[in-house]
Amino acid sequence: MAIAPEQTLQWVGDSKGHLSLIDQTLLPTQLQPADCHTVEAVWEAIKVLRVRGAPAIGIAAAYGVCVGIQTLDFCTASHAQLRQRIDEVTSYLATSRPTAVNLFWALERMSGKAKSLSEAEFSVKQIADALLQEAKSIHDEDRAMCHAIGQHGAELLFDGMGIITHCNAGGLATSEYGTALSLFFTAQDQGKELTVFVDETRPLLQGARLTAWELLRRNISTVLICDNMAAQVMREGKAQVVVTGADRIAANGDTANKIGTYGLAILAQHHGIPFYVAAPSNTFDLNLESGDLIPIEVRTDEEITNGFGRQTGPEGVATYNPAFDVTPANLIAGIVTEKGVISPVNNENILQMLQS
Amino acid sequence: MAIAPEQTLQWVGDSKGHLSLIDQTLLPTQLQPADCHTVEAVWEAIKVLRVRGAPAIGIAAAYGVCVGIQTLDFCTASHAQLRQRIDEVTSYLATSRPTAVNLFWALERMSGKAKSLSEAEFSVKQIADALLQEAKSIHDEDRAMCHAIGQHGAELLFDGMGIITHCNAGGLATSEYGTALSLFFTAQDQGKELTVFVDETRPLLQGARLTAWELLRRNISTVLICDNMAAQVMREGKAQVVVTGADRIAANGDTANKIGTYGLAILAQHHGIPFYVAAPSNTFDLNLESGDLIPIEVRTDEEITNGFGRQTGPEGVATYNPAFDVTPANLIAGIVTEKGVISPVNNENILQMLQS
Repeated sequence: MAIAPEQTLQWVGDSKGHLSLIDQTLLPTQLQPADCHTVEAVWEAIKVLRVRGAPAIGIAAAYGVCVGIQTLDFCTASHAQLRQRIDEVTSYLATSRPTAVNLFWALERMSGKAKSLSEAEFSVKQIADALLQEAKSIHDEDRAMCHAIGQHGAELLFDGMGIITHCNAGGLATSEYGTALSLFFTAQDQGKELTVFVDETRPLLQGARLTAWELLRRNISTVLICDNMAAQVMREGKAQVVVTGADRIAANGDTANKIGTYGLAILAQHHGIPFYVAAPSNTFDLNLESGDLIPIEVRTDEEITNGFGRQTGPEGVATYNPAFDVTPANLIAGIVTEKGVISPVNNENILQMLQS
Repeated sequence: MAIAPEQTLQWVGDSKGHLSLIDQTLLPTQLQPADCHTVEAVWEAIKVLRVRGAPAIGIAAAYGVCVGIQTLDFCTASHAQLRQRIDEVTSYLATSRPTAVNLFWALERMSGKAKSLSEAEFSVKQIADALLQEAKSIHDEDRAMCHAIGQHGAELLFDGMGIITHCNAGGLATSEYGTALSLFFTAQDQGKELTVFVDETRPLLQGARLTAWELLRRNISTVLICDNMAAQVMREGKAQVVVTGADRIAANGDTANKIGTYGLAILAQHHGIPFYVAAPSNTFDLNLESGDLIPIEVRTDEEITNGFGRQTGPEGVATYNPAFDVTPANLIAGIVTEKGVISPVNNENILQMLQS
């Protein structure tokens, strides 16, 4: 099963091509691509988490714009039609999931690119080509950012360390090395031996299905635990650090990430274990003063009551299923970005790092 | 589906009868009894959690002794044969699960009962009858203790309160009202309206399958959450108290309970929310100075990787699956026993309450 990590997302063909992505809902038992030939297919893939992880959602959305404008014939369509279609497609894709800022960031960048090209100078076909190029740039830049995050963050990890991670902030959530997992892969490249305790991450089990799968493929010592076992792992001294990804980071460093991250950060603080976040700079949303302003997606009952192929909750039971939570900056020892490690985490240090 | 709560465990027939118990592995979708006609069947029922919960395990083990001695013909067997068989059966049942002290407590009480009856005065048949009576007394006393726990503990709950509970400390874990759940049922009997947030309790989902089922049957407002959502529920102010059961409590108040309880207690402390334990006095093991001495059962990989009809972890992944953890006394606001509420939790107050 030797699959190149960058195939998480792949554009097939030219500006009339399509987006192919690993259908992550089928992992860890089946490794199959989902081919998205329409913007509706891309929207659905994001919505039902065939592709997930803040950076990967951004990349998928960028390619989604390229897929979406293909309802036009690039030879006969007018500039006005293209403009209208880009508006439609970006507005539509923006409704797929509310929390990850990379989605909106990527869509704005695609719109911005189109707007930056003079309609007097560039044909519709040329603009379509440029949009595909822009999506590929977003993809390439993400790959480079992930590697840089790994380089900065691996300094925080020592040979023999035990690590807890939550959800999936790996190649499957991005374009290659991932964000949190990039630290582990890079440390491994440097010859450090690590043991990673992977929270299974209910309800959708991204840790069990995706992170454990990625780590095992790269021969990193991997121990799968249920989310409620992390405190015991810490108490027994099996882990010396916690590293997770992020879906959106406010100007003050408050960080939205997969539900359970906030609790994990509290447990880490209680045990005197540093809690790090790894995320590229486009995960920051400086428009938001604090994490209180980050919208939190609440998902369906069925994810909790019928998650494992069998009904696990009684008929008709209510659930509360927030997909994310917000970890306040004061629980975060550092945020590892492609530009370096922000620590301590506060407005000033964040601004300084992002502007560097 | 009107089932009397005391049918969690039921003795059918006289001293040549059998133990019938609700097979809790089939809930919440099927309500079916498992009939245990051999001590091996009782052992297996405890081992695979057809019956679980510290008090219910004790009651099942007591009845298990009555089932086990039926390999003898009570009219022809010698006292020596009965003594030997009781030894065999109690030693065997003691190997079913290591953590809950009620198991050992009940087995010792059954052995002690047999030893207390003079072989000169009582026939084998009379001793067998007395053992059944002893098991029934254990069962009845547990029922009474649960009600008393509810009476003392309901004082801690106010109308309109939000509560978080973990695992199942209800009628299914005991003989009727349960321990933690007895507080809720009693408060409801007093006219208080509560909302109970139920941790699903991975890996075996006793919260989702059993606690949510019990609460719904009694029309208590029930919200099922994944274990990793408890911190968010606290942060949002939806819960003002946490109540769980216990599997074994050391002399200093350190409490072993279902894995995840310890983390929940830390989260409660962080949010300034009181964390209560509800348990009958036979859950205390005063021989153990502290929780460090409580043996923690580690269970199989499959419970984590293949829990509910679907493979959720990659082939060959290692797991760490401790079934319990220990919450230190300093995180526990009070222990609700049938004799009253122990608070603050320390050696002196525990001794005083247990001797009262």
